[in-house]
Amino acid sequence: MQASYFTINDHPQGTPARELFELHQAELPELADGEVRVRNTWLSVDPYMRGRMSGVTTYIEPFALHAPLEGAAIGEVIQSRDTAFPVGTKVRHMAGWRDLAQLPGNQLEPLPDFKVPEQAYLGVLGMPGMTAWTGLNRIAGMKEGDNVLVSGAAGAVGSLAVQLARAKGGTVVGIAGSREKLDWLESRGIKAVGYKGKDAAELTEALQAACPEGFDVYYENVGGVCLEAALNTLRVGARIAVCGMIARYNEATPSPGPGNLAMILIRRARMEGFIVFDHWAHYPQFLEEVGPQVESGRLDYEETVEDGLERTPDAFLKLFAGANRGKMLVRL
Amino acid sequence: MQASYFTINDHPQGTPARELFELHQAELPELADGEVRVRNTWLSVDPYMRGRMSGVTTYIEPFALHAPLEGAAIGEVIQSRDTAFPVGTKVRHMAGWRDLAQLPGNQLEPLPDFKVPEQAYLGVLGMPGMTAWTGLNRIAGMKEGDNVLVSGAAGAVGSLAVQLARAKGGTVVGIAGSREKLDWLESRGIKAVGYKGKDAAELTEALQAACPEGFDVYYENVGGVCLEAALNTLRVGARIAVCGMIARYNEATPSPGPGNLAMILIRRARMEGFIVFDHWAHYPQFLEEVGPQVESGRLDYEETVEDGLERTPDAFLKLFAGANRGKMLVRL
Repeated sequence: MQASYFTINDHPQGTPARELFELHQAELPELADGEVRVRNTWLSVDPYMRGRMSGVTTYIEPFALHAPLEGAAIGEVIQSRDTAFPVGTKVRHMAGWRDLAQLPGNQLEPLPDFKVPEQAYLGVLGMPGMTAWTGLNRIAGMKEGDNVLVSGAAGAVGSLAVQLARAKGGTVVGIAGSREKLDWLESRGIKAVGYKGKDAAELTEALQAACPEGFDVYYENVGGVCLEAALNTLRVGARIAVCGMIARYNEATPSPGPGNLAMILIRRARMEGFIVFDHWAHYPQFLEEVGPQVESGRLDYEETVEDGLERTPDAFLKLFAGANRGKMLVRL
Repeated sequence: MQASYFTINDHPQGTPARELFELHQAELPELADGEVRVRNTWLSVDPYMRGRMSGVTTYIEPFALHAPLEGAAIGEVIQSRDTAFPVGTKVRHMAGWRDLAQLPGNQLEPLPDFKVPEQAYLGVLGMPGMTAWTGLNRIAGMKEGDNVLVSGAAGAVGSLAVQLARAKGGTVVGIAGSREKLDWLESRGIKAVGYKGKDAAELTEALQAACPEGFDVYYENVGGVCLEAALNTLRVGARIAVCGMIARYNEATPSPGPGNLAMILIRRARMEGFIVFDHWAHYPQFLEEVGPQVESGRLDYEETVEDGLERTPDAFLKLFAGANRGKMLVRL
């Protein structure tokens, strides 16, 4: 049986070109004992994958050149030599960027059984949802009534962070780019602030207008001008959860950081970086809290879908053009 | 009785000029009930005072123009209408920058009774010592065996931070300027790294050579190139206690921050600003732990002393020229 998969042929500098990605076919070997063959139905593309393309170890091993890329995926078991995963089982695993995955059963997770579409386990009930929940609760220690600022607020993680924060009562402000994204935020009761065309001083003013008392929590997905403006609007004792800094991921040489970092001192604030994989032991707690909100429709989530394995690199590259609303997915 | 005191006549931009400071005399009023008159013997000058000269509220009220400046001071009660502070009592208070202080008894602290020179309560057993201890223990959560990096490591706070850290066993590296400061650090068993003439890449290399495994704790007094290099040398889970960023205090317009702030994310690090006044309830705990170390001579501390009230502004300005080793004091 032939499997198709993507590789990269070089470590990109700056924004990766479409030509970086090569589609290959290979015959799958016979299943070894304990192995399972999965037909993938949904693939995830995520900003953190850019870091894995740079050839250096950051918080996760780099992708090897000319080897199948990896990422979260949902699929169905079509052949099995692991009794825990009979044919027909719906599973999640990390052998994405391909149509057929063959891997040991201990690298699979069966899908939980909430009444939600299966791809929800790549988004709102998967890594992005868990990331939003972890940053707010375990890193920033959000309390009832806290004023919360989220950058990248219409993205896969940000769109969930604003809603989870909103449910706890304080003023929630989301920073986003396009009119469409800002409209979506306002439809969810979130104060929306556009960053496009604004420098740090102008964005600071807009944030102060949206929440004059300032923010107890800043959920950071973007970096750059968003971070600089956010630092100006912190309350004393504020906590910043640093989930990502997508504004910088494609830079070949680093840009200077914010000139107002001393606000950390002036506001006695805390800034902490995290990666969700360190907190995965709390995934059941997250599911228990957020799963029912998704089932009932209280938590709104968006998906941007590309169709067909061959579109996977395009879906990935759109993340950096801000072209997705909510979770970016590939449907096979 | 005539008292002499300093005021400022403007909010300085950049490095304050000596002419900013004006010496005045005024007749003290009669003591009111509950008030005490103190002859100051030692005055403290500290970097944080620069922030109070800017006319804006940072983490502390700004100094008023043309009013007596304030700061920590040690003195002896010479007249009293508060029975808790009879004549002859040695006290600490915040009415510095003057020779005679008159204030309500509830704004005085009697000096603790360790066998140390009285001015130690302005330095190693006063605010700078408490600041070093608080940053390491309460903010950075230093553990036995942690590798610790300290910038401004021969200053009033840094020189104590390196020694307190050294006592807990890991590798301790101090960044400082002059040869004399570096020699002092090495005499105390601290690995000393000079920052002068180095850019961030060169300082990073020097830090990596001094401690190849990287740092669990960074005690930040300086900012600028020190912060940028430190971010490059953090271990996973590192904690940065931001005590000060003296490199920036005299800037009229902010300089860009470090271009590698994403290391906070990559190393899942935490950076937290603090001011020691928020933690003053723990001063007795600090005294109990550090007082005996000072009494016994195990903890070395340096003083740089200027003589005479009229030299107070000069002592203050020397802080920004890096001219002090250890605590900068004025002896009256």
